[in-house]
Amino acid sequence: MEIGERKIRISSDEMKSEFLRILLRNGFSEPRADKCAGIFTLNSLEGIYSHGVNRFYRFINNISEGYVKPDAIPTIVHSMGSLEQWNGNLGPGPLNASFATDRAMEVARINGIGLIALANTNHWMRGGTYGWQAARKGFVFISWTNTCPNLPAWGASEPRLGNNPFVIAVPFRDEAIVLDFAMSQFSYGKMETYVKEGKKLPFSGGFNKNGEITDDPAEILETWRPIPIGYWKGSGMSVLLDILATILSGGLSTHEIKDCKSEFRLSQIFIAINLKGLKNFPSIEKSVQGIIDDMKSSKVENENVKVRYPGENVVAIRNENLKNGIPVNKEVWEKILNL
Amino acid sequence: MEIGERKIRISSDEMKSEFLRILLRNGFSEPRADKCAGIFTLNSLEGIYSHGVNRFYRFINNISEGYVKPDAIPTIVHSMGSLEQWNGNLGPGPLNASFATDRAMEVARINGIGLIALANTNHWMRGGTYGWQAARKGFVFISWTNTCPNLPAWGASEPRLGNNPFVIAVPFRDEAIVLDFAMSQFSYGKMETYVKEGKKLPFSGGFNKNGEITDDPAEILETWRPIPIGYWKGSGMSVLLDILATILSGGLSTHEIKDCKSEFRLSQIFIAINLKGLKNFPSIEKSVQGIIDDMKSSKVENENVKVRYPGENVVAIRNENLKNGIPVNKEVWEKILNL
Repeated sequence: MEIGERKIRISSDEMKSEFLRILLRNGFSEPRADKCAGIFTLNSLEGIYSHGVNRFYRFINNISEGYVKPDAIPTIVHSMGSLEQWNGNLGPGPLNASFATDRAMEVARINGIGLIALANTNHWMRGGTYGWQAARKGFVFISWTNTCPNLPAWGASEPRLGNNPFVIAVPFRDEAIVLDFAMSQFSYGKMETYVKEGKKLPFSGGFNKNGEITDDPAEILETWRPIPIGYWKGSGMSVLLDILATILSGGLSTHEIKDCKSEFRLSQIFIAINLKGLKNFPSIEKSVQGIIDDMKSSKVENENVKVRYPGENVVAIRNENLKNGIPVNKEVWEKILNL
Repeated sequence: MEIGERKIRISSDEMKSEFLRILLRNGFSEPRADKCAGIFTLNSLEGIYSHGVNRFYRFINNISEGYVKPDAIPTIVHSMGSLEQWNGNLGPGPLNASFATDRAMEVARINGIGLIALANTNHWMRGGTYGWQAARKGFVFISWTNTCPNLPAWGASEPRLGNNPFVIAVPFRDEAIVLDFAMSQFSYGKMETYVKEGKKLPFSGGFNKNGEITDDPAEILETWRPIPIGYWKGSGMSVLLDILATILSGGLSTHEIKDCKSEFRLSQIFIAINLKGLKNFPSIEKSVQGIIDDMKSSKVENENVKVRYPGENVVAIRNENLKNGIPVNKEVWEKILNL
């Protein structure tokens, strides 16, 4: 990664200890501050700056504004075998999600599968974090969250669906294969970056004000009409993920969350599947390796293109940032230091 | 639907009794022939002709070629709480899938969730069929199948991934909301239809032989390079659905299925979730209705556009075909009559 004039490199230890200091003076107990600081640092270390260091200031603001309750923990509402309904009590999203992931694995250890439906929680930052958490412990993991309305349904001209990030993860060697994607083709953050760099999107990403499909990110930011992945397909998936998160958790749906500024009281689903109990467990590692090997042996258009599995880049970025420090915008870091 | 010169209308009763007659003389017992004929008829009645009446002749051929064993039934391999591994024993795909859907619901009745992983099965025809089957009985349903390699990974120029149809269904009034979609933006069948009609695709659907993205279906049929939904996102989802189907069932993965002509020995996942056991069960219907009402109240670009939920058209098509008969290509029907 190019580090421009305004970028500095912060070691992950230094970043985590700053986060820890700030969380401790914002109502977090020591173990919870440590865990939450760890997640924000990890997200940054693994290259998801938008939901790591770049979001930390806003997260602290959300606490002082009362949207996030630093000391609230999830409480169980109802249990039915492999499925449990929990209330997140507006606790910190990353802590609630990490807890629900652990709990899904506990249930899966006993029942083969565990599904934790979590109502009344907050933004989990980066969904992939929980995919890595579960897959590195040997579990298959499927998870999603609803969001505020930020994506028009297919055919609509105003955002009433959420982009509802969706995660699938499986163990892979000592690491994991982690798919983590939202239902919109490009995130608002990504489109803003393209605008700043004066670039077009690599593919059509939404509609302009004349209702035409465009690859101009500025035009899409003006209309708030990004396209869903696969057009009508991603639109359908978005509404079904919202319905499932809502009815399984008994929480709020995207249209009830409304306010995109605070985006709180979300509904989330965490599913873990216990691979160790399967009859074919001894051959699973080889089986996954075979699929990845076959995919990576694909012919490519030209030699510069690499076929990658989801999450493959994360390990490389993590290693680079561990070695050289995490790249942070200087102003972002100064704002954090002053918290 | 316009019925051209070569289309005739066949009542669903007549269609089913023809299918029944043919299945009975191809090794099916009476109850199994009845069920299988029912599924092929229903798929046609509900407008999925490609995986109903138009595929029936090939299905019968697959029996005589030995790919589909008419009397084979699934046998249980391993059970772990909510998760069961079954061997489809190369039985008829629709019967195996319908059985696995029922079994997932049985397990979910007891454990909240049931996951049936089915190895060594055959093409299920239309995934949505099992979504309707479960959702109309009050269950949430999530399911997918792997396929032969028919989709290039993102960045690749040859198909090594499957288009792996994926289904999510929830109950809705007396009907259901059923999302049923493959990982390629357009199916090969759909692209062939556009070619026949001399039309371009409504959106980019794949690559031409120069490696450029195109909306010309003939060019894509030449390269076998359709694009995945959401480009790299659908590519990632495809490989993860294949990995999950393979490792959970202990069956074959897309690269092991290879042969796209016979496309047999597939791996499939069927997940049912029991809504009746949830604490908020009494309010679920209202909650789903609220989400759909909000989506359908979206502003639209122009008055000709309707915002629809997944599966909404199915009910209208079913009613029309019940009333007027199922539209069938005359030659297709004559071939079936001669079986």
